[in-house]
Amino acid sequence: MISQENGSGTPMSAAASTNQGQRPQPVTLRQVAEAAGVSTATVSLVVNKKKSARIAEETRHRVLDAIRELGYRPNAMAQTLVSGSSRFIGLVADAIATTPFAGQIIHGAQDEAWKHGFALLIANTEGNRELETDAIAMMLEYKVRGILYSTWFHRATELPAPLRESDFVLVNCFSAEPGARAVVPDEIQGGRSATEILLKHGHRRIAFINATIPAPAKDGRLQGYKEALEAEGITFDDGLVLEAYPDQEGGYGAAQELLKLGATAVYCYNDRMAMGLYDGLREQGLSIPDDIAVVGFDNQEVIAAHLRPPLSTVSLPHYELGAAGVRMLLGLEEPQATAPTKIYCPTVERNSVRALAPA
Amino acid sequence: MISQENGSGTPMSAAASTNQGQRPQPVTLRQVAEAAGVSTATVSLVVNKKKSARIAEETRHRVLDAIRELGYRPNAMAQTLVSGSSRFIGLVADAIATTPFAGQIIHGAQDEAWKHGFALLIANTEGNRELETDAIAMMLEYKVRGILYSTWFHRATELPAPLRESDFVLVNCFSAEPGARAVVPDEIQGGRSATEILLKHGHRRIAFINATIPAPAKDGRLQGYKEALEAEGITFDDGLVLEAYPDQEGGYGAAQELLKLGATAVYCYNDRMAMGLYDGLREQGLSIPDDIAVVGFDNQEVIAAHLRPPLSTVSLPHYELGAAGVRMLLGLEEPQATAPTKIYCPTVERNSVRALAPA
Repeated sequence: MISQENGSGTPMSAAASTNQGQRPQPVTLRQVAEAAGVSTATVSLVVNKKKSARIAEETRHRVLDAIRELGYRPNAMAQTLVSGSSRFIGLVADAIATTPFAGQIIHGAQDEAWKHGFALLIANTEGNRELETDAIAMMLEYKVRGILYSTWFHRATELPAPLRESDFVLVNCFSAEPGARAVVPDEIQGGRSATEILLKHGHRRIAFINATIPAPAKDGRLQGYKEALEAEGITFDDGLVLEAYPDQEGGYGAAQELLKLGATAVYCYNDRMAMGLYDGLREQGLSIPDDIAVVGFDNQEVIAAHLRPPLSTVSLPHYELGAAGVRMLLGLEEPQATAPTKIYCPTVERNSVRALAPA
Repeated sequence: MISQENGSGTPMSAAASTNQGQRPQPVTLRQVAEAAGVSTATVSLVVNKKKSARIAEETRHRVLDAIRELGYRPNAMAQTLVSGSSRFIGLVADAIATTPFAGQIIHGAQDEAWKHGFALLIANTEGNRELETDAIAMMLEYKVRGILYSTWFHRATELPAPLRESDFVLVNCFSAEPGARAVVPDEIQGGRSATEILLKHGHRRIAFINATIPAPAKDGRLQGYKEALEAEGITFDDGLVLEAYPDQEGGYGAAQELLKLGATAVYCYNDRMAMGLYDGLREQGLSIPDDIAVVGFDNQEVIAAHLRPPLSTVSLPHYELGAAGVRMLLGLEEPQATAPTKIYCPTVERNSVRALAPA
């Protein structure tokens, strides 16, 4: 049997003591009890917020004052046992903490979790299935309230088996499995917004350099491009859609073919592609935005704001994806009727687009 | 009082049950006991690895087999109470999870922690002191083995007061406080290596564009540049050192002044600066590396490998910083005699440097 006294204020274990000799000794439950002039059992009841325990308001305040004055730290592990669930939310990430891209998912999830009194337990698995299974097992053993399962780029995913033992929400990915709640970026709306930046500046012959790699973003961003053109009464022309590998080298390589299309503006699948296209267009002696207007997608830090000229683009809502995932996990936000739940991608206008001069 | 039976296999709390109705019911300690034909107390002793308990080897195996077959998950919170310390290492990060830069610190720390049976409890504080204090308090309440306190760029730091209540190591930052162990990048060696890339290609008139912002990197990278020149018998010339804001706009703005110096090569304080300098040099009609060789620092993903031409640079050892921090915290690696402990910055050669043609 474990007594609450042992559980709710044990001194640091021997293993944790170190060469940092100046560290103060942790305050014990007994010291709090002595300072407040009550029994250790009473302190324990106050710390664990036992509703059934009848403790005089005056006594409770005396205990809380002593806790504050002495700097006593209750043992959260023991409180978890008492309350039956922990204040952890697990975040399984394939690589969002380590790629220079989707880290804001963590930021958004953490802010929202903290707001509701939860802490994030993060595991970065680099997409390794074995690590992923271990990470989820660890989270289950720590009795997490639920798990966010997230990927650094938007894609379909196979659920790892142990995930089903917990409440979970998929973030930036989705599964065909019934009941699997998910939040993803609204790629169609994003593609529409990117195209609309160019349309509202008078461009009508707009090329689109799409990715060669199959992905929800590839289909969604093309669909949005078509919808935006249609809304302006412009017939979709398949000949204005190129494909390239979605990085700088792909964008650079697409420059010559693009120039043959006679477009006055181009919308690139992502910012990295736009960065390479800038170099390719410059080598052909063209100036952005005077000779051709360019729009990207992602609003990738380090790149978009720092190209010459700074790039107009559409932002991936990573922070919102993390925050919405937590709200959905905690039952504070209902999933949209048409799954997965889609998050709005905002427009970011800079200087790579100029109004088309009248012909 | 908390019984071990409640503590070591409680069913999910009501709060965790959801609309995901297909979730299997967690296996209880009682089911394991029934399957193994032993008492729940015996299962509990096996799960908690009580050394003092005398349990027949055959019985222990029967229990472990039942645990595996049924998929029983022990309660890590309860095990922590029994063992007196948790298997968590805390990682307090100002912004390393959310800037597109130092995320590999998390990767390295996690890999090393997992290797030794620890999980990371990560809090991203955005440098907010109040959040930081809350995060450390939470970690102390979860009885972490120790805390890594890390920053996204190398700098001196003030220790938050509650950090001293735990064993800790500073990662990518340092403090003058006695006994505060720290791991940081070896900026001087990095600056030497960057300059040596240019020297070994025959360059002798090498400019350095340093940062305007005071930082250990500013002093260290300059010191390394001086040492590398001196080792080749080249007198340091203050007139070859420019200063600019350490981003693309700073590098771009330094191009014209650089050209007045008659240097055949330039070493930039960071890759972002080199990216801007590329644009500035191109506008002046110069070609890299034919007219001038360029070296950066940081090996920043998204940029360095994808410039035209790809940039030779020196890598910040973020992964190693995280891993070394964990090893030091666990007492597996001694701090270097001259604190803080410095981590080697490797050279990454690409195509922005060419051998200097004989004059």
